[in-house]
Amino acid sequence: MSTAAPDFTEIAYDVDDRIATITLDRPDRLNAFTPTMARELIAAYDLADADEDVRAIVLTGRGRGFCAGADLGRGGSSFDPNDPQRAADRAETGTIGGVLRDGGGTVTMRMASLRTPVIAAVNGPAVGIGATMTLPADIRLAGESARFGFVFARRGLVPEAASSWFLPRIVGISQAMEWAATGRVFDAAEALSGKLVSRVLPDGDLLGTAQAIAREIAENTSAVSVALTRQLLWGMLGSPSPWDAHRADSAAIHHLGQSDDVAEGVTAFLEKRSPAFPDTVTGDYPEQVLPHWPQPPEDLSSP
Amino acid sequence: MSTAAPDFTEIAYDVDDRIATITLDRPDRLNAFTPTMARELIAAYDLADADEDVRAIVLTGRGRGFCAGADLGRGGSSFDPNDPQRAADRAETGTIGGVLRDGGGTVTMRMASLRTPVIAAVNGPAVGIGATMTLPADIRLAGESARFGFVFARRGLVPEAASSWFLPRIVGISQAMEWAATGRVFDAAEALSGKLVSRVLPDGDLLGTAQAIAREIAENTSAVSVALTRQLLWGMLGSPSPWDAHRADSAAIHHLGQSDDVAEGVTAFLEKRSPAFPDTVTGDYPEQVLPHWPQPPEDLSSP
Amino acid sequence: MSTAAPDFTEIAYDVDDRIATITLDRPDRLNAFTPTMARELIAAYDLADADEDVRAIVLTGRGRGFCAGADLGRGGSSFDPNDPQRAADRAETGTIGGVLRDGGGTVTMRMASLRTPVIAAVNGPAVGIGATMTLPADIRLAGESARFGFVFARRGLVPEAASSWFLPRIVGISQAMEWAATGRVFDAAEALSGKLVSRVLPDGDLLGTAQAIAREIAENTSAVSVALTRQLLWGMLGSPSPWDAHRADSAAIHHLGQSDDVAEGVTAFLEKRSPAFPDTVTGDYPEQVLPHWPQPPEDLSSP
Repeated sequence: MSTAAPDFTEIAYDVDDRIATITLDRPDRLNAFTPTMARELIAAYDLADADEDVRAIVLTGRGRGFCAGADLGRGGSSFDPNDPQRAADRAETGTIGGVLRDGGGTVTMRMASLRTPVIAAVNGPAVGIGATMTLPADIRLAGESARFGFVFARRGLVPEAASSWFLPRIVGISQAMEWAATGRVFDAAEALSGKLVSRVLPDGDLLGTAQAIAREIAENTSAVSVALTRQLLWGMLGSPSPWDAHRADSAAIHHLGQSDDVAEGVTAFLEKRSPAFPDTVTGDYPEQVLPHWPQPPEDLSSP
Repeated sequence: MSTAAPDFTEIAYDVDDRIATITLDRPDRLNAFTPTMARELIAAYDLADADEDVRAIVLTGRGRGFCAGADLGRGGSSFDPNDPQRAADRAETGTIGGVLRDGGGTVTMRMASLRTPVIAAVNGPAVGIGATMTLPADIRLAGESARFGFVFARRGLVPEAASSWFLPRIVGISQAMEWAATGRVFDAAEALSGKLVSRVLPDGDLLGTAQAIAREIAENTSAVSVALTRQLLWGMLGSPSPWDAHRADSAAIHHLGQSDDVAEGVTAFLEKRSPAFPDTVTGDYPEQVLPHWPQPPEDLSSP
Repeated sequence: MSTAAPDFTEIAYDVDDRIATITLDRPDRLNAFTPTMARELIAAYDLADADEDVRAIVLTGRGRGFCAGADLGRGGSSFDPNDPQRAADRAETGTIGGVLRDGGGTVTMRMASLRTPVIAAVNGPAVGIGATMTLPADIRLAGESARFGFVFARRGLVPEAASSWFLPRIVGISQAMEWAATGRVFDAAEALSGKLVSRVLPDGDLLGTAQAIAREIAENTSAVSVALTRQLLWGMLGSPSPWDAHRADSAAIHHLGQSDDVAEGVTAFLEKRSPAFPDTVTGDYPEQVLPHWPQPPEDLSSP
C-alpha cells in the first residue's frame, strides 16, 4: 500500500514498500531551511509515526545538496526576534523558558520522540541546521559529495536544534568541540572517521542503501520492539544508572513475553523462516512500560 | 595458589596465577543461557570478588561459540511470565518495579558492581544475551570467528540486561541504534570498527591475550586502586558534573595518600623495580570514599 | 597587541596573534607537576580568559616531554596529607567534602569553566597528571613522540583531576577502563585509534598545527559564540534530556539574534567576505542564557 502524498510545498513525502521517504525539496535553494519546511517536516514525522504501514523513515535532499542551512533571505536580521516576519513565523510553535522556540529544535525534538527509526541519507552540503537536523536520526549515511559544517560560531550564533546535547553523544565531546569551535566545513571522509556517519557511499548508491537498511528493518523486526528499543536507548542516555534500564527492560520483557510478536518471533527463528509479526504500535505499544520520551518541560507553552 | 572449582554445572570456574577464568560450559548448546547459568555466573562473580587471590576475571565460552543467546527450549512461551516454569525459574531473583527481574539483568547488574576487572574473550557467536552479558566487562576482545547480534527486535523483544544503558556508553548512540534497530548479526571486524571490542585476534590467540592483559593488571597494579578506579569510572558515567569526580577523587587521594600501597607504588617506581603492593580490597578498600556502585533501587524486592 | 609575560617560574605564558601559548617549563624535570605549577596554570587560565585579545589557548611542554606526572620529590610520602609540606602546598586551594582538594583537579576544574577554547599539543611523555590535565582541553593533538599513561593504579592511586568524569566522555567507558585498569603507557598511534587525540603529527609540525587551528578559530568565529558554544556542549554532557539544550539554545538564539555579531556574521557570509565581529565576551556574554559552568558544589570551601 502506498499513501497519497500530502499537500506539502517544501518537502516531498512518499510511502512505498513500508518506507516513508521525506525529501527536502527546494533544490534551487539547496533546500535551505524555512519556517514552512520546519512545519512540514513535523507534519511528515507525525504522519509517518501514526501510519502502521511505515516501518522506517528515510530523510534526504532533492538535487545537489542536502540542506545549505537556514534561509538567510532577511540578511542580518534573519534571526532577530524583533523582526515582525520572524516573530510571526515562529509564533505558532510557542515558547520555551519565555522565549520563542528555536525552529530547528521544534523539528529535532519531534524526531527525538519518534517511535519509527530514521535513516538520514546526506547528499552534498549539510550545513548549520542541515547538519543538526540529522542528529536525532538513528543512522546517518553520507554520499561521497557530502559536506558537513557546524558553522554557527562563524555566523555569531550557537549550535541549535538541541545539537549541544545530541552531537557529543554521537561523536564524543572532543570531536564535537573541534567541529563546533572552528565552525569549519568538512568532507564525508572526516565525517566517517569522526563517527558522524556510519558509511560513505558513492552518491548513486546513497538512497538505495538507505532504503535497503530500512527494508532490512521492515522485513525482519517487530514494529513494537523497534519502537520500544528506540525509546529505551535514547531515553537511557539521560539516566544516571543502569538500574533504570534494568527496571525498564524487566517491565518491557514482562509485557512482551506474553505478546503475539514474541511468540511469532521465537517460533519463526526456531523454524528458520521469516517472522510475520502481528502486533502494531498503534494497538500494542505498552505505554505503561516507558513514557513517550522525552517529556516536554513545564516551561514549554503552546500558542 | 589455585582455588578448587565450585560445584557448577553450566559454567566452569578456575583460578590460576591470580586470574579467575569463567567459562560458559554448555558447548553442545552453543552455551545457550539458562536460569541455572545466570545463577552460577552470579555465584562465580561473588566468589571472584571475595577472593584476594583474584586480580582479574576472564569470561569466555567453551567450544565453537561464546553464547548463542537465551535457551529457547520452551519455544514461543520462553519469555511468558505466565509460564509456570519461567515463573519458578525467576522467582528467586525477586522483583523490580513489581515484575520479575530480567534474568540477563541480574547477571549484568552483578557485574556492574564488581571490584575486580573483567575481560571478555568472545569466541564465535555472541548473540542476544550472549552479546549483552559482555557489556559491563571492562575490556572486550574478539576472536576472528566472533559474531555479534543484538537480535532482540527480530524476536519481538527489546535489548535486555540493561544493555540500553551500557551499549550507547560504549559505542555511541548511533552505532547502538543501528545494531539494535536492525537486529542483524555482524562480524568481528565490524565490532572492532564500531568500538564494541578493542582488538580482533586469531582464535588461537584469544584466550592467551585475555589472560596476558589480566596478568599485566595483576603484576603491575594495586588491587585497591583498580577496585576504586572501576567504581569511579563506571560511577561517574551517571554524574551530571565533573565536580562529583573532583570530590570523589580528592577523598580517594586523601585516603590512599596515607596508604602502604602508595608508599610502595611510588618507591618502586623511583627505584625502577616492580611494586609489591601490600594492601587488600577486603581489608583496605575505603568504603567511605565511594559507595559500592551502583545502588539497588528502592523498588527492588528480594523473594 | 602582545601581552607582557607575567612573572611565572614553572610555566611560560605568551600572547601573540590572539593566541595565548602556555608552556610547561621545567624541561630538566620533564615538566613534572608541582603545586607551584598548578597555581601558575590556574593564574594563566584566568589571565587568558579575561583578555579580549586572546581567542584560543595552546597548551604544550618545553623540551622533550609534555609532563612526566606529579613531582615525586618526597618519595613515598608525596601524596600523604599528613606530610607538612603537602598540607602547606595544598592549603591555599581549600577543601572539598572536608578534605584538601586534589591539586590536579584544581587545574582541570578551572579549565572546565573557561570561555576560551584550549588546544593541547602533546610532545613526548604525558603521564599521570600530564595526561589528565589535557582532558578538559577541547582539542588534543599528539606529536609522534607522544606517550600517554593513566598510570595511577601502578602507583597505588586512582585517576585524579576529575579524569574519571572526563575520560569516558572523550574515549568511551571501555577504552577508558582499559587504559586506567592496566595503567600502561601507550604511544601516539594508540591514542589516535582510541580517540584520545584527533591527529598525530611529526613533532616538528605539532606546535605549528595547534597554532594554525587556534588562528582558524580567531579569524573566523565570534568570541561570544565560541564562549557560549563551549559552555553549552560541555554543560549539556551533564543533562538528562535534549529539552534542556532546546531551552538553552532557544534562549541563546533569542539573545544573539539581536546582536551585532550575528548581523555581521550573516552579512559577511552573504557578501562572501571574512567577518569582523564587534562583540566581546567581557561586554556581551549573555550571563542570563547559561550559567558559568560548572558550578562549584556547596561543600567546596576556600581557605
